[in-house]
Formats: sequence, structure tokens, C-alpha cells
Amino acid sequence: MKRLPQVQPLQETQRAARVQHALNDKTKPLGALGRLEALALQLACVLGDDRPQLRAPQLLVCAADHGIVAQRVSAYPAEVTPQMVLNMLAGGAAVAVLARQHGLALTVADCGVDAELQHPQLRDLRVPGRERGTADSSLGPAMSEAQALQAMAHGAALLRDLPGNALLIGEMGIANSSAAALLMCRLSGLPLADCVGRGTGLDDAGLAHKREVLERALAVNAAARTPLQWLAALGGLEIASLAGAVLQAAAERRVVLVDGFISTAAVAVAAALQPAVLERCVAAHASAESGHAAWLRQLGLPPLLDLGLRLGEGSGAALAWPLLESACRLLAEMASFGSAGVSGAMEPAR
Amino acid sequence: MKRLPQVQPLQETQRAARVQHALNDKTKPLGALGRLEALALQLACVLGDDRPQLRAPQLLVCAADHGIVAQRVSAYPAEVTPQMVLNMLAGGAAVAVLARQHGLALTVADCGVDAELQHPQLRDLRVPGRERGTADSSLGPAMSEAQALQAMAHGAALLRDLPGNALLIGEMGIANSSAAALLMCRLSGLPLADCVGRGTGLDDAGLAHKREVLERALAVNAAARTPLQWLAALGGLEIASLAGAVLQAAAERRVVLVDGFISTAAVAVAAALQPAVLERCVAAHASAESGHAAWLRQLGLPPLLDLGLRLGEGSGAALAWPLLESACRLLAEMASFGSAGVSGAMEPAR
Repeated sequence: MKRLPQVQPLQETQRAARVQHALNDKTKPLGALGRLEALALQLACVLGDDRPQLRAPQLLVCAADHGIVAQRVSAYPAEVTPQMVLNMLAGGAAVAVLARQHGLALTVADCGVDAELQHPQLRDLRVPGRERGTADSSLGPAMSEAQALQAMAHGAALLRDLPGNALLIGEMGIANSSAAALLMCRLSGLPLADCVGRGTGLDDAGLAHKREVLERALAVNAAARTPLQWLAALGGLEIASLAGAVLQAAAERRVVLVDGFISTAAVAVAAALQPAVLERCVAAHASAESGHAAWLRQLGLPPLLDLGLRLGEGSGAALAWPLLESACRLLAEMASFGSAGVSGAMEPAR
Repeated sequence: MKRLPQVQPLQETQRAARVQHALNDKTKPLGALGRLEALALQLACVLGDDRPQLRAPQLLVCAADHGIVAQRVSAYPAEVTPQMVLNMLAGGAAVAVLARQHGLALTVADCGVDAELQHPQLRDLRVPGRERGTADSSLGPAMSEAQALQAMAHGAALLRDLPGNALLIGEMGIANSSAAALLMCRLSGLPLADCVGRGTGLDDAGLAHKREVLERALAVNAAARTPLQWLAALGGLEIASLAGAVLQAAAERRVVLVDGFISTAAVAVAAALQPAVLERCVAAHASAESGHAAWLRQLGLPPLLDLGLRLGEGSGAALAWPLLESACRLLAEMASFGSAGVSGAMEPAR
């Protein structure tokens, strides 16, 4: 078994002070760029540069199927997973459109899709014994701990070979909002009801049924006690591979732009193993999936966008990407009060 | 006096039905792109094209000074207005940085700045008799109705000569959050206290003082009864010119991307004169200025971003711009279920 990447705390207090001073000296009222200023500060600290520049951004989409789909926890059939993988590779999926718009290099990885997919651009991250996806976690563990570790190692290895200093993550896998909800319940400690949502569009009856199935999955996997055991028992192969990629990206001090509910599950797993991961993460958006906003709050990741998205694929991360570019440019290119000859604030009126 | 542009209702129900059908047939769960779908639908209807394309976007920043600044209602001195106009033209202001990032053509107009500004790129929209800004509205009308109409006509004429099918609006003018708050109070009918905020950064004492001054302005201008009279008595020259530009853009069926609190005042004035203006408007963001979100709600303009911005200049409009591009691209480039061979949703589980 390969050793997973270690992630050290950033320890950039001096740089943070310098960059905050630079932001305060830009030609604008103090703090007037709101969330963009905190974002610029974070990017400077993560990338280790007072004037950070984003290079060769990579959008990694991991796809896999889920045995729990047999319990009818999703509005869509499992065959949609391989169909959407091919749609991404053909350029017709939302994430492919948005990646083109913003010049994001799109990598799609088969982490265990229940089909024989052949495509020259598709990366093979399948794990021996779980080539067609996880087992049904409502009946027993989704996979073994060794398989979960292998999936993480595959994700880390893939990321190591990609260029750039920014990673955007996305996923595809019918029923994976069930796996993410189970992981949220265990990792966050919140009640299952707060973690389960409608996914791709369940109605009320479907949602109630999904909750029952997930209760059974928690009960049958009650022996799992650690983040890695929860990942193996309740998670998904795409979530594991993304968690590995996030660990590797964080270890290399790349910034990680997190998409929706399932991508957040991957980050939460990575952060449970290496808490300093979170310093490198930016939440792209709060999705419409009911538990997502609460999970982001608990993780301390305020979302950039709140557009009612519930698509996954990395689409929300791609939509938020220009804001990271803006934060870097504002820090690098805005004039200071002194250089532009602009007067500062007056003493308060009394 | 020139006649102001007339704005007709869009009457695009057939196109709306076609585009909604196209959106529903894209390879994603129904409505999964959230706010982006409503945005795509609006852009199609405004631009009169089932697959709209944004062309030559224009970012218009109108600048002017305000006589009410003498009452110390702003944290910054009036000299900052011309300084920031020059900073925009030199490329060092936030809006200039963001316009470069997104390829937005930036036009800066002097609508009555209290300085002798000379710059080859600065457009002259000054109004005879008010070349150095408005009078102090806490003592009497800020300008005459004829001057307000002239400022609007100047804005409309400038817009008429600009290319493209999208207008982003921004402004610069120390103390103009006072003018906008007064207009909000009269146009929205909300209490003044709900309309007055900290602007560029007043403390509690400064905010209380600003409220008192604005109460006086309402009292001394109580004879004003119509939107045009309110604009003249309480408003600003940059707000009037922007209102004219918005009317012209709306009449030409350009989409109008609205920045923050003061830009919203310009749109609210235009909409009070020609209600169909609002169909063409998209609110870029909800600013940190306290009254802004409520005003947008009353106008029926849900904001795209909520990033705690309070800078103005058009900076929030520039930040939101890529989302409009994304909406158009998703509509034009995403595959349909049929074309991509992707299965649709199943019957709900029971």
C-alpha cells in the first residue's frame, strides 16, 4: 500500500500580514471588495506568493457507480453514469462547456463505472476487485479499506502528473449523493435527516425511501469507526479517488476549488485524515442539496456562489473559477493610494 | 428637450416556451443549473434569440460630485471623485482591472465632477449650469428638472453610439450613496432608515448623522412628487445619466447588468419612467450597503452574487459578467438527452 500524502499547516502569518496590508492600501474603501479580499489573501498564502498567479488549472472529474443504486435511491438509472462520462468526453456536458469557456484542462477518470468504457481521453483509475463500482452499502461495506486506500492512491498519483497550481474537482456517479450523505452523517456528527437530500430530483416519497435505505446502511456498517473505515463502508470509489487527489494537491500547495455536495464529501474525508487540507480549499458554491450549506459551515469553507445549482460534475467549480482569477488580478494590478494619488478616508464626522 | 427612449414589453412568450423546453432537454436533471437557467431564458428573450450570443459588452462608469458632501455624509472627501476617475482611466482602479480580465470595453464619463479633468479617454457628459456637480439637496433641489432630463439625454445619446448588445453600469461620486438612499426612500416607499447605509465606511456616529441630514433633504424637497422630480431634487448627475443610458439600452433590447446600490438607483429611476426596463435588467450582486438587497427584492431583480462588495464603480457587474457568458454557452453548447444518448429520469420510487 502506498503512503498517502502528508499535508503540513501553511504557517504564513508574515505573508498574510504583508498581503493584508497591500489589500488595505489598494484604492478602495477598507474591505470594500468583501469576500474577494479574503480570497486573495488565501490564494497568496496557499501559493506562497504575495502576488499569486494561477497556472494551468486542472478540472478533475472522477466517475464511479454505486451498488446502493439497486435500492432505488436515485431519480436516474445507473446507466446514466457511463453515458454522462462519454458526454463529458464528447464536450456536451455542462462541465465540458464551462471548462472550454474558462480554459480549464478537463480530465475525466473511470474510478469504477459499471460499463466497459473505451475512450482515448478517459483515464483508468479502476481498483482491482471493484472495477464495476462499489457493493451495496445498505447490505454491507461498499468496499474494503484496502480498496479505498488504493482508490485514494490512484487519485493522488494522477494528480501528481498534472501540471499547474490549481485543482478543481467534480464527480459523476448515479446514487453518489447517498454515499456523500452517509459520509456527512459520520464525519460531521449531524443527524442523518440533516444530511440526506433529493439528489438529482427525488420527490417526497423518494426522499423518505432514501432516508430509510441510508438508515439501514448506517446500521449494517456500525462497526466502522474511523474516517478511512467510513469511506470504505459507506463511500464511493470516485469520492476516494478525489480525496486522494485533494491530499496530493494540498501537499503540493495547489489551491483546491471544491464543487458541490459530493466533492465536499471528498474534501471532508481528506480533511479528516489531514486537517491542514482545509487551508488550501475554496468552496465554489452552496448547492441546492439540503445538507451542503451546513456541511460547508462546519468545515469553515464559505461558498463563493449560491445559485441553486445541483448538477455536480464540477460545474459549480468551473462557474466560480473566474472569481479566483479576479482575486489574483486585483491584488497584482490595482493601484495603491500613494501610487495613484488618491486621498484616504477622513476622520469620522461628529 | 430631447424625448427620452420608450421601452416596450418584450412579449416573448413563444420564445420563452421554446427555450425552456430546450433547457429541460439538456443533459442534466430538470432545473439542476438553478439560477443559470432563468438567466439563460431571460437573455434569450431580451436579445430575441433562442441561442443568444453576447457581443461587445460595454461597461459605462458615470462620475459626478454631490453638493450634499458639504454635510459630511461620506467617509471620503469629494476630491476622491476626480482622483478615482483618473485612476480608472489609468487602469489602476478595481473596475479597470476587472474590465481587462473579461474584455469589457470601459467608458468613463464626466457627468459633473468638481474638478477640471482633462483626459483623452474621458467622455464629457456635463450639463450646463451643473458642470461641477449638484447643489446640496439638504438645502434645496440638487438640480432642476430640465438639468436632470438633460443628463438623462446625454447618457442615452452616449449609449446610442456604443456597439454591442450588453451594458454593464457603474458609477463614481463621493456622497452618492446619500443620493441613492433618498431616491430609494421615495421610489420604494420604504422608511428612510431602511434605505441609509454606511456607504464607503461610516461609523455609527457618522451613520446617525447621515440619517439626520437625509431627513432634512426629504423635508426641504417635500414638494417633489414624481420620479423625475425626485431625481432632480434628491438625485445625482451620474445617476441621471446612467438612467438615460439604461433607458436607451433597454429600448434597443440590450441586456443591462446592474452593479450595486447607486447603479440600482439609476435602474429604479428608469423603471419608474418605463417599467418594461426591468425585464432587460440583471442584478449582478447584493452589496453590503444595507438597503440594497431589499430594494432588489422590491424591483424583482434577484442578485447573482452576494460577496459583501461595497465598492461600486461597476466592479460587481464586472465580477458577475462571466455568469452571463456561461448561461449563453450552456444554452448553445450543451448536448440534449437525445443527441447524447443519455437516459432520462425514472418513474419515482414507491
